[in-house]
Amino acid sequence: MNDFPAGMVWLVGAGPGDPELLTCKAARLIAGASVVFYDALVGDGILDLAAPDARLVPVGKRSGRHSQDQRTIDRLIVAAALAGERVVRLKGGDPMIFGRATEERDACRSQGVAVRVCPGITAASAAAASLGCSLTLRGRARKLVFVTAHAAADAPLQLDWALLADPDATLAVYMGKSAADDIAAGLVGAGLPGDTPVALVESASMAGERSVRTRLDLLPLAARTAFADGPLLLLIGTALRASAGTANPGMAQAGAVFSGNSR
Amino acid sequence: MNDFPAGMVWLVGAGPGDPELLTCKAARLIAGASVVFYDALVGDGILDLAAPDARLVPVGKRSGRHSQDQRTIDRLIVAAALAGERVVRLKGGDPMIFGRATEERDACRSQGVAVRVCPGITAASAAAASLGCSLTLRGRARKLVFVTAHAAADAPLQLDWALLADPDATLAVYMGKSAADDIAAGLVGAGLPGDTPVALVESASMAGERSVRTRLDLLPLAARTAFADGPLLLLIGTALRASAGTANPGMAQAGAVFSGNSR
Repeated sequence: MNDFPAGMVWLVGAGPGDPELLTCKAARLIAGASVVFYDALVGDGILDLAAPDARLVPVGKRSGRHSQDQRTIDRLIVAAALAGERVVRLKGGDPMIFGRATEERDACRSQGVAVRVCPGITAASAAAASLGCSLTLRGRARKLVFVTAHAAADAPLQLDWALLADPDATLAVYMGKSAADDIAAGLVGAGLPGDTPVALVESASMAGERSVRTRLDLLPLAARTAFADGPLLLLIGTALRASAGTANPGMAQAGAVFSGNSR
Repeated sequence: MNDFPAGMVWLVGAGPGDPELLTCKAARLIAGASVVFYDALVGDGILDLAAPDARLVPVGKRSGRHSQDQRTIDRLIVAAALAGERVVRLKGGDPMIFGRATEERDACRSQGVAVRVCPGITAASAAAASLGCSLTLRGRARKLVFVTAHAAADAPLQLDWALLADPDATLAVYMGKSAADDIAAGLVGAGLPGDTPVALVESASMAGERSVRTRLDLLPLAARTAFADGPLLLLIGTALRASAGTANPGMAQAGAVFSGNSR
């Protein structure tokens, strides 16, 4: 396919981490790039798909050097495209869900650089697959809500708890670790029962995946224990109860059930 | 990888339709299956990935024969696994988002059949990528809500419009074509402005993809025109405005802008 000429930018979803959860299209685009600008959350092994002579440029906040601000990233991408490179901007998960793709797209367009998007598996899908839990259930969890708990530096977490405390919904909270106390207090305060099932999934789909099942009023305790420093996704709602499906589901209700990656 | 022994069932997300938007893992599992039970919404070309001697069994409602009810599908899957087959149950999009995976998982477990899930790209991700529209925007669209407008036969569409009419959210409505009138009336009635941007995307990622950009108060008109009989996804919210990005964004606000697939 001739959808990746020199001078073009593809914003590519790297998915949740496991290289096998890349789309076939993403794998092809990475292999065809002359330069790949990648986030810190891009999983190990994915960059191995790039051509041997491709440049691999880390631009994420955990890349081991100083965080590069968004305008610097925009400039790097546009300059590479204008120099005739085939540019992949590789972002964890799906570029269009909490991925800040709009800034990069607009930067390209403002300079006349062709830019397109290849979707990725978002963390909630990967976590649900790992847990074996559907995120929606006919008649009981007919709505799925994604929010991010990542607030600007020093800013308090501002979420409308009354809208989020919806017993008919499953709530997926991205980047939820540091905000677990606020989330539990906010949702219970707005009327969601304390025994609402919760699953915490760290590094979904990756070798270091860990998950904990608990209940909403025990979420702060669970978030403080048992996790490393990978990205943490919270899933909250009655759909998680129907999906406990363990040998001892009573335990999942009463306390926390821990599990490692079963790949 | 030895994650697909005889007698096992994988619930596999087929993604939005384009075979290239399968995950690499899904492609591998389909190729390794001895039998594939597939939905009607599985895109053309995906079944070509199956082994030449694999059985391909349509079980969807549009498969040209009578709709098979869920219990029949459950029985077929379990019986094949118990007979020692390697079973792929291939479902459009992501099995865990409006995919009814829970019933099939429970049917397997109740008979001692090992069952796992491979995620897929959900239609909202594919539609956002095609449109070049982010579904979330920092500070303005910090929440993403998925609902289905598919109600039980003869039942009215029951959605809580007050919860859904959230100016801080992007709303993705699956199976939204027949409910477009109710959705527009419900959201405007609950306070969402009539000029809220809307995109309608039919058959996202497929050869027959069509999209229309309009505004909430013109949604019923748009849904009645310009579409064939593919699955229709509605995206509603201010994030779509920031992402108009056409040569003539004013037109996207004032009326409807139509476009075909640009693959």
